[in-house]
Amino acid sequence: MTYCVALRLNEGLVFLSDTRTNAGVDNISSFSKMFTWSVPGERAMVMLTSGNLSITQGVMNLLQENIDLQKEGVPTILAVESMFEVAEVVASAMKEVQTKYGPGLSARGEASDASIVVGGQRQGGVPRLFLIYSAGNFIEATDDTSFFQIGEIKYGKPILDRTLTVDMPLEAASTLAFLSMDSTLRSNLSVGMPLDLAVIARDQFQLTQYRRIGDDDERFRALSNAWSTKLREAFYEISTMPV
Amino acid sequence: MTYCVALRLNEGLVFLSDTRTNAGVDNISSFSKMFTWSVPGERAMVMLTSGNLSITQGVMNLLQENIDLQKEGVPTILAVESMFEVAEVVASAMKEVQTKYGPGLSARGEASDASIVVGGQRQGGVPRLFLIYSAGNFIEATDDTSFFQIGEIKYGKPILDRTLTVDMPLEAASTLAFLSMDSTLRSNLSVGMPLDLAVIARDQFQLTQYRRIGDDDERFRALSNAWSTKLREAFYEISTMPV
Repeated sequence: MTYCVALRLNEGLVFLSDTRTNAGVDNISSFSKMFTWSVPGERAMVMLTSGNLSITQGVMNLLQENIDLQKEGVPTILAVESMFEVAEVVASAMKEVQTKYGPGLSARGEASDASIVVGGQRQGGVPRLFLIYSAGNFIEATDDTSFFQIGEIKYGKPILDRTLTVDMPLEAASTLAFLSMDSTLRSNLSVGMPLDLAVIARDQFQLTQYRRIGDDDERFRALSNAWSTKLREAFYEISTMPV
Repeated sequence: MTYCVALRLNEGLVFLSDTRTNAGVDNISSFSKMFTWSVPGERAMVMLTSGNLSITQGVMNLLQENIDLQKEGVPTILAVESMFEVAEVVASAMKEVQTKYGPGLSARGEASDASIVVGGQRQGGVPRLFLIYSAGNFIEATDDTSFFQIGEIKYGKPILDRTLTVDMPLEAASTLAFLSMDSTLRSNLSVGMPLDLAVIARDQFQLTQYRRIGDDDERFRALSNAWSTKLREAFYEISTMPV
């Protein structure tokens, strides 16, 4: 299982993913689900992936291959003119990989479902965030719904629903992403450490933060414990209200 | 969809359920998913149901029919000697109804999945809480896992995981059940008001509280708003921690 979350704030974009994949509980591995590309000063992008690992790796490899080969007439995510076009390139790679492997997988009764969150900013544009589905269709985050989650999304959604605002500073938004992840880690064992965090601050056109958070990360553990304490305190204050 | 939660505390049992059922978003109805039985002073029981409505209603009707008919040699939930035997009676009713309708439903490609939470206390015993699955197998809540959820369980689980303790007073536990429900209501539109709340305090052998909470319930709304405020305050205090 996977949990990835991406937040679109006025100040930029925050991405957080776990790294656990599994094909049954006895076959658990760790793969990064976060992919980053940047042309410093010109564009910076992050992608998060969920679903069938062969499909999402296939899409990432195809995107990279097209960048490396620079074939005439083949648009690449490093060359297109806008984040919308980046989303289109990723979406059409998704469609290509699904067309290639989807029917074979479904003939064997296996799922080819996959989804990809793509966010970033390019010179001349604003930070944008897209969610691409298995069929290659996609949607964009707006001020009304300014986050996307993929994978095991439910445990970590209530805190986002109640707390996220687009005017939140990037540090607070990173903390919020961690708390949303922490709720998921506690409730679903197939989502696991280490975590990957990436931040793209507005108008910097580069990754302003990229960090791997391991099992032994003291600060993450302190945050998790502090949140448990705060939540219990808040609950005890409220539990005296008449209902 | 459904969300029901039941908590087993040292002081007794708390049950909360929504009432919305649907067969597609254009066919939404309201049915109680909470069923109560008591012989005041001797035993009190509450059941919560989730899954295929014809199956769960079939089980409830069979249990009631057996009570009404009082056939020789047919054990009923009002006559058996212990809460464990109550769970066995409910489980065997589940098996009987599943055997009758399950194959026909599955031949039409429809799910007969259902689950029932049964809790209560009988003179001479302690408050006990069971979860009965579609196959008629069941498990019991313990001090390690002292709650059961059925239906749309994920949104409302993190707060239970972090906050519930078996020594919590019944009022606080009812508030906790409301907050768990509130997180679910906010995140899944197919779980809906009104709500049914029931409490069985230890050694009372009767329903010590039974209430329907409607859309217009001011106290529930106040609780929901207060929790949002507290959660945001707690988050802002914590968002200054370094991560």
